[in-house]
Amino acid sequence: MKKTKNIEDKLKESGIENGDTIRVEKQGEIYEGVLIPHHIFSDKDIITIKLKNGYNIGLEIDDETDIKLIHKSKKKERKERKTFFNPDKPTVSIIGTGGTIACYVDYRTGAVHPATSAEDLAFSVPEIFNISNIKAHVAFQLFSEDIAPAQWLQLAEAVAKELNQGSHGVVIPHGTDTLGYTSAALSFLLRDLTGPVVLVGAQRSSDRPSTDAALNLQAAVQVATTTDIGEVVVVMHGESSDNYTLIHRGTKVRKNHTSRRDAFKTINDKPLGRVENNEVIITEPYRKKSKGPVILDDKLDEDVGIVYSSPSLRAEDIPDRRGLILMGTGLGHVPNRLIPRLEELIKKGTIIVMTSQCINGRVNLNVYSTGRDLLRIGVIPGEDMLPETACVKLMWALAHGENKDEVEKLMLTNIAGEISPRSRWNC
Amino acid sequence: MKKTKNIEDKLKESGIENGDTIRVEKQGEIYEGVLIPHHIFSDKDIITIKLKNGYNIGLEIDDETDIKLIHKSKKKERKERKTFFNPDKPTVSIIGTGGTIACYVDYRTGAVHPATSAEDLAFSVPEIFNISNIKAHVAFQLFSEDIAPAQWLQLAEAVAKELNQGSHGVVIPHGTDTLGYTSAALSFLLRDLTGPVVLVGAQRSSDRPSTDAALNLQAAVQVATTTDIGEVVVVMHGESSDNYTLIHRGTKVRKNHTSRRDAFKTINDKPLGRVENNEVIITEPYRKKSKGPVILDDKLDEDVGIVYSSPSLRAEDIPDRRGLILMGTGLGHVPNRLIPRLEELIKKGTIIVMTSQCINGRVNLNVYSTGRDLLRIGVIPGEDMLPETACVKLMWALAHGENKDEVEKLMLTNIAGEISPRSRWNC
Repeated sequence: MKKTKNIEDKLKESGIENGDTIRVEKQGEIYEGVLIPHHIFSDKDIITIKLKNGYNIGLEIDDETDIKLIHKSKKKERKERKTFFNPDKPTVSIIGTGGTIACYVDYRTGAVHPATSAEDLAFSVPEIFNISNIKAHVAFQLFSEDIAPAQWLQLAEAVAKELNQGSHGVVIPHGTDTLGYTSAALSFLLRDLTGPVVLVGAQRSSDRPSTDAALNLQAAVQVATTTDIGEVVVVMHGESSDNYTLIHRGTKVRKNHTSRRDAFKTINDKPLGRVENNEVIITEPYRKKSKGPVILDDKLDEDVGIVYSSPSLRAEDIPDRRGLILMGTGLGHVPNRLIPRLEELIKKGTIIVMTSQCINGRVNLNVYSTGRDLLRIGVIPGEDMLPETACVKLMWALAHGENKDEVEKLMLTNIAGEISPRSRWNC
Repeated sequence: MKKTKNIEDKLKESGIENGDTIRVEKQGEIYEGVLIPHHIFSDKDIITIKLKNGYNIGLEIDDETDIKLIHKSKKKERKERKTFFNPDKPTVSIIGTGGTIACYVDYRTGAVHPATSAEDLAFSVPEIFNISNIKAHVAFQLFSEDIAPAQWLQLAEAVAKELNQGSHGVVIPHGTDTLGYTSAALSFLLRDLTGPVVLVGAQRSSDRPSTDAALNLQAAVQVATTTDIGEVVVVMHGESSDNYTLIHRGTKVRKNHTSRRDAFKTINDKPLGRVENNEVIITEPYRKKSKGPVILDDKLDEDVGIVYSSPSLRAEDIPDRRGLILMGTGLGHVPNRLIPRLEELIKKGTIIVMTSQCINGRVNLNVYSTGRDLLRIGVIPGEDMLPETACVKLMWALAHGENKDEVEKLMLTNIAGEISPRSRWNC
């Protein structure tokens, strides 16, 4: 397929600008909709149009693609809104990371742009300025699947700075794919929080009628402004309709659906509370904010892998890392033929923690002989920790324990709400 | 720790037999309960006692352990029950695999023994003989974490034989850890089923007051006896109380909790129906049984791995297999830095299928540029297939497609209910 040298030229030739309604004919198929501006994350040879049903579609354009102008848009100006500082209101810091929710929608074109300033946010979700003074900056712009330990450290540093400079709370809009990893990481990297640290995402981008971006961001700002929580939490839609959002503990939350707006669930515990009708209702015990200052603990050992057990897992598929999280079957098992490989790694110094691919429930290595054999060779039972949280925690524990015993002790100690008390949830 | 040479001798010296109440003193801790017989799966230096709260505990015995007889049990005879053949009733075949549910409870001692004959089952769950004539044999005795493709093939062969010899249906008691893998495997390995093939398990063993073994087995036999289903299904507790069991399609079911009795869930679809008050109620469409004969399709290529994406996944952790199932984040993403490794493997001939670690929902590689890049290098979107089912299906597809295109086509075709129609479940 030949690629056109310059899509912009092609559009200009036809007198087409962003916001115009166009018809694209490509390999016999016809697409009609509003041309929306090039998104920072889109490929260069792709144009995006918003179809009548509200969905966006990306179309790869080559020289054979026919693009026609249907009608010009009526231009509307972006209404600027001044953001005055009100000394009677608390200040909340928003730190952008590139997720959908940090974007603002250009109402003329329906396009999504990353919000890079408080003004952009004021344009997108003006309601939040009624709740608090907003300080906003962008830490980085990445798809969340590309966010790695380096970014966790960068964010932790930024959060500590904002809180220590006097912000009442911090809101971090974040792509949803790895939001749970980041919320767990910040939970271990930050101590003595002087206010709520609220991660928030959107499952549907701001340009779709079903978007959850505005509701989630408002609720997040509400939690950051009005509560005395001293923990890292995640605020996301609580159900498919728009009635409320849930406040999840950062170490207990998981994206459990690819696309639903209520994809995020608290696992093996209850959510801390909810936000409903602009009111924050906390129903579970939580750690209250400290007097500060916030301590940044920036040590992580990234050399931790996750291994998913299955009937076809082979010894040589289990990598030689400083730490390994096993996602075993059931109560925490792997095929017995793999135990010698695990023993070999443990003897070489690898710390291995067992979690369950069931996701829900607690591992228990005392029930069956496979489990007891795993205990005997030194596998650490991961209690009811999420595999993702256990992975991040092991990175943290490896950087803090002097030896295997200390790392094991840290892994079995509840540091940031990641382990539920046995008496409460044991089955 | 010194190990005692012979636990049996030690018990005999104290005049202790199975069923007696004993007190064990071990490292300062005291355990009192009924001694239950050595379980086939227990370690040799372990005795198991049933505590007063109904739980069993395994205790490692060494020479320092003190064991005292508290009182002798009153012996009760095992009541034999004759199993007459009733020509008016259908016959159901039960094929044992070593799971908890295939065990029978010795009511004198509370011990669990693997049931190896119809007589054992009659002793354990006599109710099933009221429903149908029972033919029983044991295919193998393994913990389900050790059940591998070789056993799937053995089971498929046994099922085909039983159905082709005239059984109305087949019931397979199976350990719960990998029950979903086996049910998926049988779904692809067997065609033109002449009756229901019902896998069933127990989350709590038969000796515990909370056992689900009897209810589940009765319901499974009911489904195998009274329905015209021509599919592989899984019958398990539907909720934590004892009100009903659910009938799950074999390719859509997953163990979603380590210990709850209602751990098994149908994912991305509805269960086919339920069994309540001894009545089978089917509520969803299903494949009806064929006139037969059952076709055994015994080709599998085991060289398929599962890789769980995470921020710390490294290129060298992605093994060089004929097939790979990726458990991506969100709609089906991996860190962009890993795409060159995937492209290298695909160029060398690896078939890579994307599923989601969200478990619920459908992958969609068209929404973001990471997904489009994965499509471009040849990653196959796994629709809404469970990762475990996709793994088994890829083993099957690799053994049936002549080339990449054929394997890809098979993976994207709904063969055994593993892919839900887009119109119904797409979000």
